[in-house]
Amino acid sequence: MKKKEIVAFQGERGAFSELAAVQLLGPRIDLLPCERFEQMFRALQDGAADAAVVPIENTLHGSVHENYDHLLNFDLKIVAETSVRIVHNLIVPPGTKFADVRRVYSHPVALNQCLRFFAAHPRLVKTTHYDTAGSVKMMMSERPEGAAAIASSLAAANYGGEILKASIEDDRKNFTRFFLLRRPDFVTPKIKGNAKISMVFTTKNSPGSLFRALAALALRDISLAKIESRPMRGRPWEYLFYLDFLGHVDDKNVQNALAHLAEVSDLLRVLGCYPAAKIDL
Amino acid sequence: MKKKEIVAFQGERGAFSELAAVQLLGPRIDLLPCERFEQMFRALQDGAADAAVVPIENTLHGSVHENYDHLLNFDLKIVAETSVRIVHNLIVPPGTKFADVRRVYSHPVALNQCLRFFAAHPRLVKTTHYDTAGSVKMMMSERPEGAAAIASSLAAANYGGEILKASIEDDRKNFTRFFLLRRPDFVTPKIKGNAKISMVFTTKNSPGSLFRALAALALRDISLAKIESRPMRGRPWEYLFYLDFLGHVDDKNVQNALAHLAEVSDLLRVLGCYPAAKIDL
Repeated sequence: MKKKEIVAFQGERGAFSELAAVQLLGPRIDLLPCERFEQMFRALQDGAADAAVVPIENTLHGSVHENYDHLLNFDLKIVAETSVRIVHNLIVPPGTKFADVRRVYSHPVALNQCLRFFAAHPRLVKTTHYDTAGSVKMMMSERPEGAAAIASSLAAANYGGEILKASIEDDRKNFTRFFLLRRPDFVTPKIKGNAKISMVFTTKNSPGSLFRALAALALRDISLAKIESRPMRGRPWEYLFYLDFLGHVDDKNVQNALAHLAEVSDLLRVLGCYPAAKIDL
Repeated sequence: MKKKEIVAFQGERGAFSELAAVQLLGPRIDLLPCERFEQMFRALQDGAADAAVVPIENTLHGSVHENYDHLLNFDLKIVAETSVRIVHNLIVPPGTKFADVRRVYSHPVALNQCLRFFAAHPRLVKTTHYDTAGSVKMMMSERPEGAAAIASSLAAANYGGEILKASIEDDRKNFTRFFLLRRPDFVTPKIKGNAKISMVFTTKNSPGSLFRALAALALRDISLAKIESRPMRGRPWEYLFYLDFLGHVDDKNVQNALAHLAEVSDLLRVLGCYPAAKIDL
């Protein structure tokens, strides 16, 4: 039997990142929870992990710039993408009746995404915790009286909690997109179907510079999937651009486009080429 | 004496949004704290407030898509922008010694932005609270033993707390950009210096469509200050674009550019024209 791979992710066991890891690699993995994003990049780079699962953007909260920074600072590559719907569940110790719940623990962002539920049940006291999955872990080990927690179904399963009310989030269209990262020497399997490329580039600081850069793609009928500018610190009016487009790095058309783009940009870095997932975001 | 204006913002008194409000309008304002973003848009629209101060993007966390959605759904206009550096301070009841502090309350995002401080003082227990300013309010009213809070200097001033250690955040380059909103009938003072325009548009779904749209600006030497794509829900491969560029809506050049852009987009909405601030972001 093949040895299980070690997958680094940020958060406690049962975090939404763990759901993404299972979507990307199946359930037969060993998980390495990290407190901070940078730690999981380092764990992968240093060989403590075989892969890392990184949240990169969320429907409500935008791009995770910190992780784009780490993608530029570490020499790793994106080999897959997926998206996870953020479903919040009310979780209790098994056998607890809803009438006995008084206090609901979770991360404030999760509590704030369930305001309709709290409005319908004004007796419930919102109590903040440092982590969604961590609130289930604490509830199951410390058993405070009348406690429930809000977290993913995986957190309930991991810590032996029971889902009393499923999907209590206000907005069902809340998705987070994740990248699967590997070290640069990882041999990527051949991509079947559409491929997508993620890259970062900067342009010279002048009107029309982005327009000229996008010509490299548009003149070759390449479809953009994402574009985002980010001001460069300490350099007013200079920008970093995040770009995703459809195509494979082995396509002649794409290679020409990248060569053309390199002519008009100061910095250009391909972060990865991977199967384009049917993602909701 | 002129009646004070009522300014809606999200959060408790002393939130970073209140700092932005003071930067934008000076200290002689009446503040209307709102629990959720939508409530402050509604308060302004319905006349309960005269202005609203809205966070729109953050250096580390990206654009606040929810507020772009509200900008599209409500008929309000942007009349100014500013940026606030997110400075976290350790705040205590006056007279407290640092040696007596055991427990530090704040929003988990703020606690996570001060990890170096906690690493240097391992005796301190991080304790989550729903709000940064709210943690100062609670500490000053309930006075838990050995308690401190992490929040803005304004929160310390508002609730009578004392700043024991200033600027304990890990990253000094953490800025949030805010918009000042008014109702559409508000008469904007004449803009001196550079003006900036914020808009949203969609394009037809085909390769090169963004390139053709940007031609409307590039061919007229108009400088982009921000571009961001956002997938449209339920419409794969169709995007909304957020765009900021330098120029005044009264300029003939800008009017031509907007007319040209309208030709190649399905939806186009100018969200406001305002003085371009020297913002750090």
